[in-house]
Amino acid sequence: MIIIGEKINGFIPRTLQAINAKDAEYIKKVAIGQTENGANYIDICAGVAPEIEKETLIWLIDTVLSVVDTPLCLDSSDPQMLVDMFYYVQEKATGRQKDEGMINSVSMEEGKCEVIFPIIADTQWNVVALTCNNDGIPDDPPTKLAIATQMVELAATYGISADRLFIDPLVTTLATKGESLQNFTEGIALIKAEHPAVHFTSGLSNISFGMPFRKVINTQFLCLAMAAGMDSAIMDPLSRDMLATMFATEALLGNDEYCMEYLSAYREGLFG
Amino acid sequence: MIIIGEKINGFIPRTLQAINAKDAEYIKKVAIGQTENGANYIDICAGVAPEIEKETLIWLIDTVLSVVDTPLCLDSSDPQMLVDMFYYVQEKATGRQKDEGMINSVSMEEGKCEVIFPIIADTQWNVVALTCNNDGIPDDPPTKLAIATQMVELAATYGISADRLFIDPLVTTLATKGESLQNFTEGIALIKAEHPAVHFTSGLSNISFGMPFRKVINTQFLCLAMAAGMDSAIMDPLSRDMLATMFATEALLGNDEYCMEYLSAYREGLFG
Repeated sequence: MIIIGEKINGFIPRTLQAINAKDAEYIKKVAIGQTENGANYIDICAGVAPEIEKETLIWLIDTVLSVVDTPLCLDSSDPQMLVDMFYYVQEKATGRQKDEGMINSVSMEEGKCEVIFPIIADTQWNVVALTCNNDGIPDDPPTKLAIATQMVELAATYGISADRLFIDPLVTTLATKGESLQNFTEGIALIKAEHPAVHFTSGLSNISFGMPFRKVINTQFLCLAMAAGMDSAIMDPLSRDMLATMFATEALLGNDEYCMEYLSAYREGLFG
Repeated sequence: MIIIGEKINGFIPRTLQAINAKDAEYIKKVAIGQTENGANYIDICAGVAPEIEKETLIWLIDTVLSVVDTPLCLDSSDPQMLVDMFYYVQEKATGRQKDEGMINSVSMEEGKCEVIFPIIADTQWNVVALTCNNDGIPDDPPTKLAIATQMVELAATYGISADRLFIDPLVTTLATKGESLQNFTEGIALIKAEHPAVHFTSGLSNISFGMPFRKVINTQFLCLAMAAGMDSAIMDPLSRDMLATMFATEALLGNDEYCMEYLSAYREGLFG
């Protein structure tokens, strides 16, 4: 599993508090903790008013760059902000953090792919690609496939290979749609059959919105999505429940020979 | 999900302690608790030396019959003991506990089906049917199917319809065989395709034998087995983790319209 650590996000109240207080120590601690617990990317999302998004992102990026060498996942709904931050990282970072990284996100909403694909074309950066467009978020798997195909084909015209796309089939809320998981997993199945090289990722908490005891819905969603072929998640690697679920599921699915990863994560105290 | 409550089993140390102390209050409490938490059957297994198995089972059955009307699941490795206990229940029980019930178990080991099928033939009793024979427990799904087919066909000769068989495809230990889950779920898939009416059941803890923090392996096994079509489990309905996993998985799989079962179980305090 490719873990995108989700904690440095101003939409999370504790993180917003740190942003507002310019509490760099907290941000550093979370960046280090996520890295130690296996994050492959550190997501960085400001979650503040547009007027201060840029300065906030720069402060968060500087803070994270100062303590870990984990590649970043630049996260904004504004494509131009993603471009600016990509170039900022190219200027400030070195090594893996300059060469690798993730843009979160593009979709078939007008002007997203066209702005992001050119800047990452000649790099090794990856991109989260949401299966939505100007018409909104489709529930039905064939439309998810159609949008994914458009993005894969458009990426190819920039020389971006399919394995650099992390398709997010956008799971809906279970409380309002009983087929949320099926639409998601069938979306993966259809897209995987057509585009075997792409990765799949998702946040884990949308599905449980409005439900009590969300933790168990989120962990079981992770398990079932992994069984369906999801090989990445935007998740909290500091959650012991999530890590336990992830390692147990990898072992059960036969992706962890002799359960070595499970056993060593347990011994390292990541869960249990 | 059809829950076979597993707690009244002398192989569980706390239950053995109650058996040895003739602590009927503990057995009653467990029978009531499992019933309140949704058990469809109460498994009764002595787990003691053969010389005292019969008297132990009779005491357990009498104790359980005195407090709940949940059908029993008579559990012994000795087919003749199952016959004796079946007739004992026919004599002592009334209503659902006389008319319905489960025998745990038969297999294609010589002399099991032949002894059990005749006695339940003209009743509504069900039976757990293990996919093993005199050669042992096969790992490969086609052999699991072959044995299941033999049992379904043999049952039919006694007028026992396939929907009265709870096939247990016998999951192996993950620590010694990385394909444990795949063999189990592919076994279900093959058997379901051939015999769509049968039920599937399994214990949940064999798979995690020898591993640390077994709880998470067991819950994720439950989730993935349910996704593969398992519609029953021999489980502990007093485990809040298990119930949470079960209700969340049912909701995610689309088997719980508007999440009503999940929400009401949560409100009743069964988990969370």
